Order: sequence, then structure tokens, then C-alpha cells
Amino acid sequence: MSGDFGSIAVLGPGLMGGSLLMALRHRHPTLRLSVWARRQSALDDVMNRGLADFGSLDAAEVVRDAGCLVLCLPVERMKKFAESLVNAVASGALVTDVGSVKGAVVAELEKVFSRHNNFVGSHPMCGSEEAGLDAARADLYEGATCVLTPTSRSLPHFVEKAARLWEMVGARVVRMDPARHDRAAALVSHVPHVAAAALVELVGTESGDVRKLCAGGFRDTTRVASASADLWSGILALNRVEAARGLGDLISLLASIQRALEEERLDEVNALLSSACAHRAEILNALQ
Amino acid sequence: MSGDFGSIAVLGPGLMGGSLLMALRHRHPTLRLSVWARRQSALDDVMNRGLADFGSLDAAEVVRDAGCLVLCLPVERMKKFAESLVNAVASGALVTDVGSVKGAVVAELEKVFSRHNNFVGSHPMCGSEEAGLDAARADLYEGATCVLTPTSRSLPHFVEKAARLWEMVGARVVRMDPARHDRAAALVSHVPHVAAAALVELVGTESGDVRKLCAGGFRDTTRVASASADLWSGILALNRVEAARGLGDLISLLASIQRALEEERLDEVNALLSSACAHRAEILNALQ
Repeated sequence: MSGDFGSIAVLGPGLMGGSLLMALRHRHPTLRLSVWARRQSALDDVMNRGLADFGSLDAAEVVRDAGCLVLCLPVERMKKFAESLVNAVASGALVTDVGSVKGAVVAELEKVFSRHNNFVGSHPMCGSEEAGLDAARADLYEGATCVLTPTSRSLPHFVEKAARLWEMVGARVVRMDPARHDRAAALVSHVPHVAAAALVELVGTESGDVRKLCAGGFRDTTRVASASADLWSGILALNRVEAARGLGDLISLLASIQRALEEERLDEVNALLSSACAHRAEILNALQ
Repeated sequence: MSGDFGSIAVLGPGLMGGSLLMALRHRHPTLRLSVWARRQSALDDVMNRGLADFGSLDAAEVVRDAGCLVLCLPVERMKKFAESLVNAVASGALVTDVGSVKGAVVAELEKVFSRHNNFVGSHPMCGSEEAGLDAARADLYEGATCVLTPTSRSLPHFVEKAARLWEMVGARVVRMDPARHDRAAALVSHVPHVAAAALVELVGTESGDVRKLCAGGFRDTTRVASASADLWSGILALNRVEAARGLGDLISLLASIQRALEEERLDEVNALLSSACAHRAEILNALQ
């Protein structure tokens, strides 16, 4: 299954890239893996753990012999980084990424890699509020959904290769166009992220006695708000139109519940909670 | 420590009441425990598990000899239920509850129990989306915060007795007046609950491809939306003023982020996310 990959280069060994190296090393021990990191200490950490066969701070050197490159950087850094290494990438090498926004990223990277049309966007849906190699784990991708976002420019054999890559680490592949992905990601991830941060701020800006009441519900509802603010403002910036639209949808719904409470239309509140309870069960059951 | 309780009567063996019985049985095996349930099958379940020494569907019979009563019913049923048993309660018996709303519940129950002024409101902050005796566990209250809401009418020895009850099952007791509790509970629990339900509905009312992207962040952020809609519409109904006010605060904050995204004031988005990340760490660290 892993025969035609040659070596796989992971660019950026954080939570996503580090977990990818671990999963590939664990499941496909004969694959040659190479790694680029921005800092020497991060590179040393990967190499000391035996997660790659070759590593360098020079991206061109890392990608030159790779049959597949996976860009595991914050979304706002992808374009500049890709430009810095495009000339070193072999014509037959697949380039993909793990960015949480696809419209802007795919448009930028398809342009950077237009010579061979070898870029296909990916978004494995398994990030968390944690970051860095210390949070990485070999089973991060197992059972996760990975969205591929091919466009009319994508070459089928590269799309197939990208699908195989994620299946090799246990993910389920779904295909979606970049714009649809960004609408969906806004609703399932970016808007909930903003809501979680806002819920924390409601409590965080109150006096201390309120905080003492925070319990399991608060903890889970706001978990994602502990993620890197820089990483997430980058994501929201690149998907700001869909995120703002989704926030508008959320605000409308919350305002209708607020009015129902104010006007004592409690059946409406019950109906919404019942519907949400049923929908959540449907959504999670379908994912199993 | 458990010497002066006589027997403890738990009224309603669901998640909260069932867990209380388990915790008392486990930690204080010599205490006499009695239980009232609405349905024979629920009563049989408690008795078959050996969680109480006496049980009946007749509340008056259950509470007659108790030194302490704990009302573990949905908030909207408390008043009527209390009225049905008040004449059977001994003058020295503490009456408390586990309701998630305190203003309305305390006002109602102080009135019902005004003859001996033996009601003190409690709200142990450890509910979950699960319900019923099958979800109950002996360690539910361990490390949890339990809010006591004494008023100017409360007799100090009953307040002390209520505090001891919750400490006996491992909770940390905090005192707060009922109105302040309801503001705080709206912010840390009732508003997040509505937000979770609304976030589910945003996805639930979209076509199926969006749902496929739901992952760990969505699952945790919306966990509480799987709770009983009836239980929670009762809570929201009784705390509707503070819940609506808190929703208004949330909507204002979300709208300001929406505008910042639309107008590309991305530093503001980053500042909010950074503040939320720091506040969440502060809040959770203080709880440990």
C-alpha cells in the first residue's frame, strides 16, 4: 500500500505533523520519512525520538527526494513557505497540507504549485486545543475524518495518492469542494471555537465568586478555547467570511431563544432543546 | 461526623439522588438511608442495589423519621412535592435540595417550610448530560463545588447541617445568596447550555455533508446539549430572567467578534482568543 510514496516529507512536526510521523513510523516502518522544522530544538526532538530518517532546517533539502510532502504549518504561513521550496519539489511528488481553511489555502497553493498541478488540499479533522510534538500521538488520525478538497485543476492520480496517504494512517476520507468545506468547517469548528472563547469571557470578566461555580459542563463546553490564539486567529482570518456568516446564524438563533425566554414561550425553548438533543445523537451516531 | 443526622431521606433517586445514596452508603455505612421514588420500578432498582434501608412511593412515610431530607427532583416539581409532605417533616429535620435554580426555588420552599424555617437551598455543581440511577456514581460529589444559598430567614444550625451533609460526600461548600447564584449559574451553566444546543442546531439543520466534519471539538463543545430537554427547559424557565440577560451578554460579545471579522480587525479577534485562553487557565487552576 505504501509502495509508491517513495519518501514522505513532513514539514512542521507539531501536533498534526508529529502525529503523522508517529503514525507512519508505527504502521509503515519501512517508509522513509524526512522532516523539516523551523527550530533546531524541535528538529532534535523529532530525530532523537527516531521519528524520521532525515531532518534539516533547510526545507529544500528535505523535500528534494520526497514522493509526498505534507505541509503542517499554521495556515497563514503556508503560501510563503511553499514559495520557498517549490523549485526543489519533484514533478511527481504530491503536495498536500493539514490546514483548517481550504478556500484561501488551496487557491494560494494551487498557484504556487501550478507547474505540475501537484497540490491537493487536505484537512484531517482531529486537531485539539493541544499543540506541539509533546501532544502528538500515533493514533491521532485513526477513525478521524479527513476532508480532501480537489478542484477542477487537480490531477486524479494526485487526489488518489492524497486519499491513500490519509487512509494509511487510519483516517476516513471525504471529498468536498474548498468553498463547501469552509462553510462546513465554520459551522462545526470555527463558530463553536469563537462561542467557546466568548463563553469563557462572560465568566472571566465577572468577579471571582462566579468562577467558583464552573464545573464539568463549563469545562467541556469551553475546552477548545484553550487552543493557541495565534493559530486560531490565523484560521478565522483566512475563513473570516464564512466564520462571520456562521456567527450571524448563531446570533440569530440565540436571539430567538432569548426572546422566547423573555416572553415566556417556554414550549419553544423545550422544542429547541429537544431538537438539539435528537440532532446531536444523529450526528454522533453517523460518525461511529 | 455523621452522628447527628439520624436518617437521611433522598427524594428522587436519579443521577443526583442516586449518587448521593451511593456516596453516603459508601462513606458512612452506618447511616440510615431512606428513599422515595415516583415509580415502583425505580424504587425496586434502588432497594435491589442495597442503596437504602427503607423505601416507599409514599413520601410522607419516607420522611417521617428523617433528620435530613434532600429533594432531588426537577426544579419545577419541587414546590408541589414539598407541599405534599411538609406536615410529615419533623421540626428538627433539615430540608435541602439539589436544584439548579435557587431564587425561585428557595423563595417557594422557604414559604412551604416556614413553620420551622428548616429549608436551606443547595446546588451541587456536578450534574451532567446523563440522567437516572444508571448514570449515578458514588464519587459524583467528590471535589465538586456545592453552593449553599442561605437567606436572612435561614437558621444557622440548619445551614451548618447542610454544609456538613455535602462535605460528608466530598464536596466543597460555597455560600452565595440565591440571586447571585442564579446570575452565576446562568453564566457558567445555563447560557453555555443554550449555546451548545444552538451550535448543534446550526449543524443539525444543514445538509448531511456538513455533519461528516464533526469531530472532537464539536463533540465536547456540545456535550451538554444531550441532556434532558424537559429537565433543562424547567431550569431555564425558572431562571429565565438571568438566562435571558446572560444570553444578551453572549450575543453582544459574539456580535462584536462578527464585526471584527467582517471589518478585518484581526488583532481584536486575536486579543479576545488570547484573553479567553488565559482566563480559562485561571478559572480551571483555581478550581483544582
